[in-house]
Amino acid sequence: MAQRKITLQESEIPTHWYNILADMPNKPLPPLHPGTHQPIGPDDLAPLFPMELIKQEVSTEKWIEIPEEVRDIYSIWRPTPMYRAYGLEKALGTKSKIYYKYEGVSPAGSHKPNTAVPQAYYNMKEGVKKIATETGAGQWGSALSFACKLFGIACEVFMVKVSYEGKPYRKIMMNTWGGTVHASPSTLTNAGKTVLEKDPNSPGSLGIAISEAVEVAAMNADTKYSLGSVLNHVLMHQTIIGLEALKQMEKAGDYPDIIVAPFGGGSNFAGITFPFLQHNLTGGKKVRAIAVEPTSCPKLTRGEFRYDFGDTVGMTPLIPMYTLGHNFIPSPIHAGGLRYHGAGAIVSQLLKDGIIEADAINQTECFESGLLFSGAEGIIPAPEATHAIAEVIRQAKQADKAGVSKTILFNLCGHGHFDLGAYENYLAGKIIDYEVAKEDINASLAELDTPVI
Amino acid sequence: MAQRKITLQESEIPTHWYNILADMPNKPLPPLHPGTHQPIGPDDLAPLFPMELIKQEVSTEKWIEIPEEVRDIYSIWRPTPMYRAYGLEKALGTKSKIYYKYEGVSPAGSHKPNTAVPQAYYNMKEGVKKIATETGAGQWGSALSFACKLFGIACEVFMVKVSYEGKPYRKIMMNTWGGTVHASPSTLTNAGKTVLEKDPNSPGSLGIAISEAVEVAAMNADTKYSLGSVLNHVLMHQTIIGLEALKQMEKAGDYPDIIVAPFGGGSNFAGITFPFLQHNLTGGKKVRAIAVEPTSCPKLTRGEFRYDFGDTVGMTPLIPMYTLGHNFIPSPIHAGGLRYHGAGAIVSQLLKDGIIEADAINQTECFESGLLFSGAEGIIPAPEATHAIAEVIRQAKQADKAGVSKTILFNLCGHGHFDLGAYENYLAGKIIDYEVAKEDINASLAELDTPVI
Repeated sequence: MAQRKITLQESEIPTHWYNILADMPNKPLPPLHPGTHQPIGPDDLAPLFPMELIKQEVSTEKWIEIPEEVRDIYSIWRPTPMYRAYGLEKALGTKSKIYYKYEGVSPAGSHKPNTAVPQAYYNMKEGVKKIATETGAGQWGSALSFACKLFGIACEVFMVKVSYEGKPYRKIMMNTWGGTVHASPSTLTNAGKTVLEKDPNSPGSLGIAISEAVEVAAMNADTKYSLGSVLNHVLMHQTIIGLEALKQMEKAGDYPDIIVAPFGGGSNFAGITFPFLQHNLTGGKKVRAIAVEPTSCPKLTRGEFRYDFGDTVGMTPLIPMYTLGHNFIPSPIHAGGLRYHGAGAIVSQLLKDGIIEADAINQTECFESGLLFSGAEGIIPAPEATHAIAEVIRQAKQADKAGVSKTILFNLCGHGHFDLGAYENYLAGKIIDYEVAKEDINASLAELDTPVI
Repeated sequence: MAQRKITLQESEIPTHWYNILADMPNKPLPPLHPGTHQPIGPDDLAPLFPMELIKQEVSTEKWIEIPEEVRDIYSIWRPTPMYRAYGLEKALGTKSKIYYKYEGVSPAGSHKPNTAVPQAYYNMKEGVKKIATETGAGQWGSALSFACKLFGIACEVFMVKVSYEGKPYRKIMMNTWGGTVHASPSTLTNAGKTVLEKDPNSPGSLGIAISEAVEVAAMNADTKYSLGSVLNHVLMHQTIIGLEALKQMEKAGDYPDIIVAPFGGGSNFAGITFPFLQHNLTGGKKVRAIAVEPTSCPKLTRGEFRYDFGDTVGMTPLIPMYTLGHNFIPSPIHAGGLRYHGAGAIVSQLLKDGIIEADAINQTECFESGLLFSGAEGIIPAPEATHAIAEVIRQAKQADKAGVSKTILFNLCGHGHFDLGAYENYLAGKIIDYEVAKEDINASLAELDTPVI
């Protein structure tokens, strides 16, 4: 019987996160103050984040120790399994070898708790009583509610209204872990009120919800803010995925030629690829790292590299990023976690420098791939994760066409238990693709008055 | 850092199921033909089941080999983790040690695939093209759809109408794996039509859905029937849980004083307890094995031990069981998987002989326990699983009161991702308990004209 699953013991959970900043040939440009456009310092971030996370955000140390309390909570679901996808390989009839790391085994059902847990921990250690955050499809809000519950602090979540109404189970999941959830835009913040004055029926967006959560944190001394992707420390926490995958690949006696991950703000992609890219950057083995975004939100493949806000209202620092403009409203695709206008500073710099690659795929191809996967491997993937699967299938077919065998690894970042409505629509032939016109991207970018790089 | 999770490698998946029939001091009485009331033989069951499963149903061999193809599919989610519940212990302030085996990591989210996979496999091997089955809350129907998809055979599911309408995600999950799902009672069978003639608005029941599925299998040569609990071979397949738990307990350097599991038809309970009861029955260490049922469906604690049908219409063989009468309609509690009128023959005989124990708990106590658990351990349990948690808490408190420390193991049989509506009701104070009047049980039993034992 061929081994399907490569398992690690609890004692093999990595003890340090990997900080790719230490190895990057060109460091990202600094974030700028939204008002002065000058580089910001730790003090500017202190109202929003605990000092330890601010230190991690700017650290260039290569390895950052994971606190024992965090590793203890990680052990609820970590180490996560890595699979050899024999079923998918057979269904494709490919000569390539396909592996995937499965992050859906966490209580919240995705990779998000990997950073929610340390973020809640450092806040708790510094006496913070409450964390405010935003959530789109609900993955991040439930991960942070879970983490806050375990460390005994409160969690307040601004959930994009269209998801709040369409995904009630995600909201209840947060409630079950003690989280308070508001539909965003809300009347609880000036940011929310401003949006509602212009459009009382606003369906909300991730950018608006971020503005609301940042405002709550800025206005309350005992409350901090937390972000589930984009920022350097968030990406670093996620490297636990790739560090485990490195060990598992070694146990499998293999090494990937290609690593694929879905791309929203960058944390999922960074998590699995950075520990391997370490070797690319330090003269070791080379992998191709491919970030997969939806064609309807193509910041990596069609965006501009410049400074932009992380939110809609313009309250966050300016970040050097590939962006579609912070006012860009992506079409209502089902992969809610990938509907974000920009990319984190580190991943943007890596793309700029040609160290990573990007591809964009339509959601019908993704759902088709997800359904093939669930029938072949048994696990129903989240819509976000199907973007990686679709790319893996493209790469395997290309390799077969070229008569070669590749070793491909991807991040199956979450299960689709709360996305079955989307699969129902797909099975009923109701899923459509959205083209983004060049003029729309240009118009959105033309609205920016942020510094060009 | 104390070890939280006891993990096994894929190579440690057990190679044989344990058949407790070999060790029972009193074997269960034989099943009877529903018409003649004579003991049935293999030929009577041949229209419904493949021959290998019929052999397993009557086998008294102690160990039955697990086919390699089945172990290969098992390896998608097995071995499952066993946890030391440090969080729950701390929340209770108990001196007792609590462990749980977590079966919610399977693709269908419960222990049900442990038997769905071998059942689909043996059917496939004997050339069966389609399996018909029933499902209540949807756990079993999704497990069998998953298994049938992997072995390339069709699956037709009769889903209790009230769940079909109230739990659409479970239905879509089955569709995603290629299963065909009908609301039961349906107009596709005589059994369904008969029920609908009497009551066009019938919400359905597990007993009715079984009648429909059995009829479809009996009327179609290429179609067999499959049951998710109650029968001997089903309970035996589930012993994979306890066999792994034995190894994990050994690794933890511990052995349980008490094992607790929820009780519907018996498969979940049998799965975790039988491999330990083996030692009780053969002169080894003794454990207390406690089956926990809802007070609203109390066949073990308040039912009668006699022959009864497995279904409502009276198409199945008569089974010697603790029963509330096959016409008993349990109140609409949220633990749909525990709303069944009878218990399997083996577990009934073990209870009769004082080898196992039973307890009944109200659902409000169960939800309270489930919520405490999810906050302390991170995993949101299925309503069925909360019955075990509530009993564990009772036992730990009793031990503390007596000034002793017990080692308690329970089966966390599934996650609650599709039951969050129930948690919402609980959080809103809308969950109520149901008392079953003595007269109602007596009236239901008085309707039986089946043989008394």
